[in-house]
Amino acid sequence: MKYQLAIIGGGPAGYTAAEMAGKAGLSVVLFEKNNVGGVCLNEGCIPTKTLLYAAKVHDTALHASKYGVNVKEVSADLGKIIARKTKVVRKLVLGIKAKLTAQKVTLVQGEAYIQDAHTVRCGEELYECEQMIVCTGSATFIPPVAGLDSVNYWTHRDALDNKEIPSSLVIVGGGVIGMEFASFFHSLGVKVTVVEMMDEILGGMDKELSGLLRADYAKRGVKFLLNTKVTGVTQKEDGIEIEYTCGEEKNTVCAEKLLMSVGRRPVMSGFGLENLNLELTARGTVKVDEHLQSSVPGVYVCGDLNGVSLLAHTAVREAEVAVHHILGKTDAMSYRAIPGVVYTNPEIASVGCTEEALTREGRAYRVVSLPAAYSGRFVAENEGVNGVCKVLVGEDEEILGVHLLGNPASELIIQAGMMIEDRRKLSDWKKYVFPHPTVGEIFREL
Amino acid sequence: MKYQLAIIGGGPAGYTAAEMAGKAGLSVVLFEKNNVGGVCLNEGCIPTKTLLYAAKVHDTALHASKYGVNVKEVSADLGKIIARKTKVVRKLVLGIKAKLTAQKVTLVQGEAYIQDAHTVRCGEELYECEQMIVCTGSATFIPPVAGLDSVNYWTHRDALDNKEIPSSLVIVGGGVIGMEFASFFHSLGVKVTVVEMMDEILGGMDKELSGLLRADYAKRGVKFLLNTKVTGVTQKEDGIEIEYTCGEEKNTVCAEKLLMSVGRRPVMSGFGLENLNLELTARGTVKVDEHLQSSVPGVYVCGDLNGVSLLAHTAVREAEVAVHHILGKTDAMSYRAIPGVVYTNPEIASVGCTEEALTREGRAYRVVSLPAAYSGRFVAENEGVNGVCKVLVGEDEEILGVHLLGNPASELIIQAGMMIEDRRKLSDWKKYVFPHPTVGEIFREL
Repeated sequence: MKYQLAIIGGGPAGYTAAEMAGKAGLSVVLFEKNNVGGVCLNEGCIPTKTLLYAAKVHDTALHASKYGVNVKEVSADLGKIIARKTKVVRKLVLGIKAKLTAQKVTLVQGEAYIQDAHTVRCGEELYECEQMIVCTGSATFIPPVAGLDSVNYWTHRDALDNKEIPSSLVIVGGGVIGMEFASFFHSLGVKVTVVEMMDEILGGMDKELSGLLRADYAKRGVKFLLNTKVTGVTQKEDGIEIEYTCGEEKNTVCAEKLLMSVGRRPVMSGFGLENLNLELTARGTVKVDEHLQSSVPGVYVCGDLNGVSLLAHTAVREAEVAVHHILGKTDAMSYRAIPGVVYTNPEIASVGCTEEALTREGRAYRVVSLPAAYSGRFVAENEGVNGVCKVLVGEDEEILGVHLLGNPASELIIQAGMMIEDRRKLSDWKKYVFPHPTVGEIFREL
Repeated sequence: MKYQLAIIGGGPAGYTAAEMAGKAGLSVVLFEKNNVGGVCLNEGCIPTKTLLYAAKVHDTALHASKYGVNVKEVSADLGKIIARKTKVVRKLVLGIKAKLTAQKVTLVQGEAYIQDAHTVRCGEELYECEQMIVCTGSATFIPPVAGLDSVNYWTHRDALDNKEIPSSLVIVGGGVIGMEFASFFHSLGVKVTVVEMMDEILGGMDKELSGLLRADYAKRGVKFLLNTKVTGVTQKEDGIEIEYTCGEEKNTVCAEKLLMSVGRRPVMSGFGLENLNLELTARGTVKVDEHLQSSVPGVYVCGDLNGVSLLAHTAVREAEVAVHHILGKTDAMSYRAIPGVVYTNPEIASVGCTEEALTREGRAYRVVSLPAAYSGRFVAENEGVNGVCKVLVGEDEEILGVHLLGNPASELIIQAGMMIEDRRKLSDWKKYVFPHPTVGEIFREL
């Protein structure tokens, strides 16, 4: 069988590319060993957000009296929450499949193996292709910790299918995934401890806002161990014991469950990537140009596999750029305004540069920051909850970075990203009429 | 006392202008007969949103089981809700006062009377000014209905201070205010009937989406009487009886309370406006240019009083433009992208042109529309709730209008307004990376 385009991996990059290329009239084959939608849809972004929304409903009911609403006996039914999550994922997987079918994409369910830049094997079948997009994604990185293999620890995947609320949980890794699960399980009444090797949670986000979020969760009862390295784990009768060092201090913490969430890494082997002899970067990831094309013409590498951003929305945009290049349309990837969101409650969202990055690069900037309470709507909807809108402005008044703490940061960061992508100035926000009252109005107040 | 700028009215236009002009170094006097913040802050946008958020909390708790959360005995304490509303308003009024003080604005509490373009009287005092911004706002329009004077009907102001949940409520006027109160009282268990003279609620919003919202509320139990004219009201023992005609049909509906919300009108008399001899438009409102300057140089008319848009955020932008003109800075008012939001649950939001307006103007357009369920986040957070994202695109692919049904439409409409203001094309959304998963992503799917 011969196709104009073969796509290896059916995650956000793969299904986006397949749908687009199919729509443009190319003959497309898409290989996926599990469900289309990839980690993002099946065991990442979407299932976690479904769980986190249930937790938000739980939080809202629990604190309803702050808003004049009386509620009795709030409890979470984790079995029902997980069942709903499965239903939501199934619905969205079917949606993607329908789109692929509509664009006449051949979906091959199975493990693909790249033989060369024009040949993919899957099972007994050989598939020829003119061009190829490789987007096989990343996998959970499990650090080498003494004793880890002998305990029954969770990855995010196990946490998403667990139907019984544990009494206590240690989360190793306070990044986005770690904090979202900390938020979820804490809301459900679990005693949560977050162990983080760095001096702050959410590395890569604005440090000040991450600190505020941490302080907020600490006040609510989540325990944080920063600058802390896990040195060993042991299964005890009443749970898992985690040994750690923090500076000179050696100590242990014990919990019913242990979630390992130190990060994800591109998966570079097991599917014949090496047969392409692609040039690598100094960091050991595949080198791609601004069209996501590798050193081998006609071979594109998108999404987590290229190691640039490891976010679903980056993968989608990369796939679009790659397909445009294949179709001969002018386009190029820009990483200037890639938003990052942590769906805790409140949410934290970021786009553009952080203070840390600007300082590292030696770029001059000033901080313009306001409490979210400058928005009347925020005050109306957030009793006893703080928020911050922080904007980093360059010497020429260009908006370089925007960092938000407070709901609905995830949706508000969209227009901030548009401003950064277009290299707009701080005063440009004033040219637009923002609806009143909204939380988003705060950008006009800066 | 002599000031460079006198501002009559301390609502959104007035306090915005006062703060800006003060910051720029002008000596400013601001006259306000009630509280600064105007109708918007004291008895409009902010108090209604505080109430509506309480209703949303109530809805969320009531339907928590859809998301796997069990809740027992949900009830609203209207006294507490109203008390919290008063607290929120007080906090924000103090915030505005603090801003005015910081910019050395002289705040005069009292009824101002304009003697001429350079003289304002308040009580016994005379205030001279070089320039003047008049922004006295609008008032509830009470239509002439037989018997209305002899019944104890509510305006929005009464509804905002009422502490006891009535059993039933008739709302005359299905516009934004009417629908927001319908939404609020329905959530609290009140039997609500909405009487609307036109063939659809929310005149001025997209008709299709307004119809969907109406159908949704009708399903939940709100009764709608469209194409219906109220002909008389009578106080009965068990409530207020409203007589109406609908085509040939004459009928009555009875309810414990009656809310009159047919609209608002600029208040043109009672404060000496006539002494300025300003030129009027054919509609009888004050004529202003793109700098909000009236026919008398140095006299600016902003906000509801000029009758253009009657929205707080329009007033704010108009005030900015007027002050810029006073300061000699280049700026001009644009009404191309004024968002409109109805804070029902779900929200409905709109910016730019409606289909009705485009048809009236004879402009060619096509409709690009998607169910909100194209957003994974919307699916995760809206069990059994529908939404729509509808975009009107011109012949040259310019985005002419955006209409949203579904939460959080109010915040999502911001970036849509920016696109319309900048005359961007539909495909331009694809140039930006939107965070995944968000409801806002749906704009990239169009």
